[in-house]
Amino acid sequence: MIKTDILIVGAGPTGLFTVFEAGLLKLKCHLIDALPQPGGQCSEIYPKKPIYDIPAYPEILAGDLVDRLMEQIRPFEPGFTLGERADTMVKQEDGSFIVTTNKGTRHHAKVLVIAGGLGSFEPRKPLISNIGNFEDKGVTYMVKDPEIFRDKKVVIAGGGDSALDWAIFLADVASEVSLVHRRNEFRGALDSVEKASELAKLGKIQLFTEAEVKELHGRETLEAVVIKHKDEEKGQTYLETDYFVPLFGLSPKLGPIGDWGLEIEKNAIKVNNSKDYQTNIPGVFAIGDVNTYEGKLKLILSGFHEAAVMCQYAYQIINPNKRFVMKYTTVGGVEGFDGSKKEAKKEVVQSIV
Amino acid sequence: MIKTDILIVGAGPTGLFTVFEAGLLKLKCHLIDALPQPGGQCSEIYPKKPIYDIPAYPEILAGDLVDRLMEQIRPFEPGFTLGERADTMVKQEDGSFIVTTNKGTRHHAKVLVIAGGLGSFEPRKPLISNIGNFEDKGVTYMVKDPEIFRDKKVVIAGGGDSALDWAIFLADVASEVSLVHRRNEFRGALDSVEKASELAKLGKIQLFTEAEVKELHGRETLEAVVIKHKDEEKGQTYLETDYFVPLFGLSPKLGPIGDWGLEIEKNAIKVNNSKDYQTNIPGVFAIGDVNTYEGKLKLILSGFHEAAVMCQYAYQIINPNKRFVMKYTTVGGVEGFDGSKKEAKKEVVQSIV
Ligand SMILES: Cc1cc2nc3c(=O)[nH]c(=O)nc-3n(C[C@H](O)[C@H](O)[C@H](O)COP(=O)(O)OP(=O)(O)OC[C@H]3O[C@@H](n4cnc5c(N)ncnc54)[C@H](O)[C@@H]3O)c2cc1C
Ligand SMILES: Cc1cc2nc3c(=O)[nH]c(=O)nc-3n(C[C@H](O)[C@H](O)[C@H](O)COP(=O)(O)OP(=O)(O)OC[C@H]3O[C@@H](n4cnc5c(N)ncnc54)[C@H](O)[C@@H]3O)c2cc1C
Repeated sequence: MIKTDILIVGAGPTGLFTVFEAGLLKLKCHLIDALPQPGGQCSEIYPKKPIYDIPAYPEILAGDLVDRLMEQIRPFEPGFTLGERADTMVKQEDGSFIVTTNKGTRHHAKVLVIAGGLGSFEPRKPLISNIGNFEDKGVTYMVKDPEIFRDKKVVIAGGGDSALDWAIFLADVASEVSLVHRRNEFRGALDSVEKASELAKLGKIQLFTEAEVKELHGRETLEAVVIKHKDEEKGQTYLETDYFVPLFGLSPKLGPIGDWGLEIEKNAIKVNNSKDYQTNIPGVFAIGDVNTYEGKLKLILSGFHEAAVMCQYAYQIINPNKRFVMKYTTVGGVEGFDGSKKEAKKEVVQSIV
Repeated sequence: MIKTDILIVGAGPTGLFTVFEAGLLKLKCHLIDALPQPGGQCSEIYPKKPIYDIPAYPEILAGDLVDRLMEQIRPFEPGFTLGERADTMVKQEDGSFIVTTNKGTRHHAKVLVIAGGLGSFEPRKPLISNIGNFEDKGVTYMVKDPEIFRDKKVVIAGGGDSALDWAIFLADVASEVSLVHRRNEFRGALDSVEKASELAKLGKIQLFTEAEVKELHGRETLEAVVIKHKDEEKGQTYLETDYFVPLFGLSPKLGPIGDWGLEIEKNAIKVNNSKDYQTNIPGVFAIGDVNTYEGKLKLILSGFHEAAVMCQYAYQIINPNKRFVMKYTTVGGVEGFDGSKKEAKKEVVQSIV
């Protein structure tokens, strides 16, 4: 069982910044995310696109924003359970919570923060009747650890950025990379399309366009896929492989959180925005895109402020008898749990001559 | 009369970011500040100190934060009335507002935003009986435009960063710079102290320590100061000068805003934080350090979020019959009033081979 002060469901920008605000109050955080990497929508949907409305960043790529947040929270040593979906939440008699993921990982904390954005990112699966039999036995919908593909054969399906980028990355890792796409045209960042094109010409990526993976074969684990070509003359290709990775995009679904007894409105969780962003269940807060209240703006900026406010109240729940006097970071510095300490240089008092 | 959509009292970080959020909604802003430069507390109190809790900035100097905000809002061409204090506010019959400064500059807008922080920064004045007679006639408590000192004689008083930094800067501008300080020791950033020390040795700054300016002389305008030395043997120095600039720090005072009929609590303005940060006077909003509500955090971050929310409601007041559909900046880009346009690179759709 993983134990922490504040358990955060969702490692998007809101969940990440919560670690920082909690850390200033000496509270430890652990995050659960269905995605294999932190960053939520920013990492999954538009990592290479610029955002213009982050205060004091006239322009920042969404992926860079996530990197900066990760750097900022590092001193507070957050724990992560990635690639797992928080499925059940049980409130204990003492008011604390146990949250269990779809893979059975259990987490225990006094305060639960839901920073689940538009929901848990769930893969769009191709319609292949027996695909369920091969899940985690050769079929995977996202790349959690690229090392598992080392010196293996991999078939990737899809025509967007993820399919392109993983095909490019794995070209140097796997023994064989095949990229299968329904159309001739790919949709992605110019440099990804160009790079994939180059690797295809060099034979480092085997390309099947106007084609679809239609069958999966194997006894225990996946052994081969059957690719059907649009061009009837080409017919079918039987391709031996260790892995099949369909990358048709992930779409967010509020999912299991919807069954935790929280008050839901317009697919989002109602919170008390006039005070602490607490939900109808005491000890459970909801911040960022996942919450709703009058005037709510689903912006990254909103989650940041909600996190700061919410943490003050989480502190009171975790330390009911202590009082924390907030100090400006400029004045008090930042003391990491890792022993690091950042602080402003002291002014000097000295005579000039 | 200066006319604008949103008139902002206070050009601290909150007021500045408001220009950006308003700009996204195609609303123009004008800012009034008692200080000669934008940035509020960040520029006036701790420009060279690091802040650690701005989201996605593991560390940023307060002065750099202000520079970044200025860069971010540039496309929206904000107007500035600097070095003037907003003194009176009169609500018009049509619901709009006229705000007049202590120097008589008049401003007209449909929406008034008070982002006044801890209040208008007012100089601490030295106790010299006739100093009032020379204000703006040789005596100035802040440096608005350093060019006025070109080839003139200047006496600066003070022992902190502002006194040091202006003495250093003006050493190259004025014909003669004298720096008068009560003690021998200065309190400032190490590099400022060192630099001033060097210039003093080179004779580019004339130094009077353990000394105070006690008298001002002149007919119409200032002509000379009398410096009294602690060491009685040294007695007094009569120094001809064109300017006397006492830099004993500025301290914020809520000031005239307190008399505008706004509901005040704990020296701050009460707002409806469950919705739009509007005050008891319809059309007047209060955001940033200047407002108060349950759970309020006087942090830079709070003002940023409050600005974003507030602007949506300001839009409705200014355009009662229009509906604005918010677009993510990543998706819609940023169109400046100056004709500039920033937007994400379009994805390419192209075949690989
Ligand atoms: C194309 C696009 C452009 C955008 N542009 C801008 C912009 O310019 N400016 C701006 O401010 N905002 C923009 N946004 C919105 C911004 O990305 C969101 O406001 C922000 O990501 C919300 O952060 P969050 O942390 O609250 O949620 P998310 O980023 O959605 O992260 C939530 C995370 O929670 C996880 N999760 C949810 N439920 C569970 C569960 N049960 N178990 C495990 N994990 C779970 C999800 O997998 C996800 O990773 C844009 C969004 C898109 C899609
Ligand atoms: C030493 C120090 C360290 C800090 N460290 C941090 C930190 O680490 N993190 C953090 O988030 N915050 C920190 N803060 C607080 C932060 O600076 C404030 O929250 C922030 O400046 C508030 O911004 P604002 O725009 O609301 O108000 P301000 O910055 O106070 O700006 C308000 C402006 O309004 C002007 N004004 C007011 N009334 C009038 C009037 N009638 N006419 C004309 N002008 C007027 C004032 O002159 C001023 O320039 C720190 C503050 C200090 C002093």
